[in-house]
Amino acid sequence: MKHNHETTITSRIRYSEVDSMGFVYYAHYCVFLEVGRTEWLRSRGFSYREMEENGFFLPVVDLKIRYHKAARYDDLIETITTAAELTKRVIRFSYRIVRERELLIEAETTHLFMNRSGRAGSLPQELFNRITRDGAI
Amino acid sequence: MKHNHETTITSRIRYSEVDSMGFVYYAHYCVFLEVGRTEWLRSRGFSYREMEENGFFLPVVDLKIRYHKAARYDDLIETITTAAELTKRVIRFSYRIVRERELLIEAETTHLFMNRSGRAGSLPQELFNRITRDGAI
Amino acid sequence: MKHNHETTITSRIRYSEVDSMGFVYYAHYCVFLEVGRTEWLRSRGFSYREMEENGFFLPVVDLKIRYHKAARYDDLIETITTAAELTKRVIRFSYRIVRERELLIEAETTHLFMNRSGRAGSLPQELFNRITRDGAI
Amino acid sequence: MKHNHETTITSRIRYSEVDSMGFVYYAHYCVFLEVGRTEWLRSRGFSYREMEENGFFLPVVDLKIRYHKAARYDDLIETITTAAELTKRVIRFSYRIVRERELLIEAETTHLFMNRSGRAGSLPQELFNRITRDGAI
Repeated sequence: MKHNHETTITSRIRYSEVDSMGFVYYAHYCVFLEVGRTEWLRSRGFSYREMEENGFFLPVVDLKIRYHKAARYDDLIETITTAAELTKRVIRFSYRIVRERELLIEAETTHLFMNRSGRAGSLPQELFNRITRDGAI
Repeated sequence: MKHNHETTITSRIRYSEVDSMGFVYYAHYCVFLEVGRTEWLRSRGFSYREMEENGFFLPVVDLKIRYHKAARYDDLIETITTAAELTKRVIRFSYRIVRERELLIEAETTHLFMNRSGRAGSLPQELFNRITRDGAI
Repeated sequence: MKHNHETTITSRIRYSEVDSMGFVYYAHYCVFLEVGRTEWLRSRGFSYREMEENGFFLPVVDLKIRYHKAARYDDLIETITTAAELTKRVIRFSYRIVRERELLIEAETTHLFMNRSGRAGSLPQELFNRITRDGAI
Repeated sequence: MKHNHETTITSRIRYSEVDSMGFVYYAHYCVFLEVGRTEWLRSRGFSYREMEENGFFLPVVDLKIRYHKAARYDDLIETITTAAELTKRVIRFSYRIVRERELLIEAETTHLFMNRSGRAGSLPQELFNRITRDGAI
């Protein structure tokens, strides 16, 4: 049985990220998701910065988040990212955010490959091979 | 046939809200949703600030966003909010964000009523009547 | 005696802007300053968005803020902006943020005119005349 | 000659922190300053989270930032923090943000010790001794 490649990155909750209830403001988890998928791409040898410099963009077209428990200021959280779907046109990431094994967040983002002209495009075969490690995600 | 009450609030996109593609960063739409539901509550005679001061909180437990088109710096956008579901325990808001009739975003947030102790609770009948205008949403 | 032209713009504090003390997080006042100077430029017939599209940028090189009182969630605040200095190379804005005449914040930002190449430049005479209204600020 | 104790903490620039010029938005440096002083306190054995839980707050009353060079998306930056002044009533932090030895930012923040009632207060002798390591900063 084949498991998806997953990456884990740790973040410490900043004061600026917490709301007046003392919990991370619900929008800021989007930032941890972005940090998570950037690391996933890096683990495949892609810098998202270089991708953009080369004219490939990954705008989000769909976002789903389930909030199970809330993180607090100064907590250390881990964002675990996998690619749930990967074609030449679409990439869908799946995420769990945990704090010491306790599940805080489950989320999913769907992205289109977009070129510099702002239109949805198709990833060249060579990049596709690199990003999928020849077909596997 | 009865239509849901809806509120509309206009926001101008700030420089701080735009990413390096020149579009609103995907997390910031969550802020416009929050502004939208605050206005919906205000239109029912509720200040969310007062609700919190009185010990009622509305943490988000579920978020869904579909990104159709992107807003740019200095655009004027409108956030249109309705309550899709409203019981003594749960409130689900539904949103559209538009720019001159063009649909940018569709979204939905689900909230639990929570009391000061941090546990999911039930809205008192009197508040429920006020917020629903005696049953209608 | 000649008074500087000043503009006033009202903002309502969003939930996302408040920290766990219940006050606006100190960095967010920078956003209100940016909103203030954008309105000042607009009142002179300049859209900052168009300025950037035409290749003129106004990066901040210096920032000073004095925090007198803190704004809270849902407060209405006014940002009052004047140009304290305006040459072809430098623009310095001066700000007060107030809540019902009570002074919350005093601030100052200094900006260089920068062209698309990322180097400090000089504003063309025609633009300078428009922005200063022929010499007055 | 006695040198001030300084701490260094590394942050990677997030996509959410960059503006449409491709540089870190000027307000976000305030967040790196906050991260820097939190680490300084931690290096003295203080968790700022615990300080707040014990009723001691450090609101900012004054902020100064000089922007020399701008950081870009995915850059690794270091925030170097020292305490420039430390009495029972006031603490002033001094910061440099660098990227591979290149100076990006110089900054200073001044804070008052505040108690739970929201009034400026005085740090108890025992805490003062701990935070200063018996007089030295």
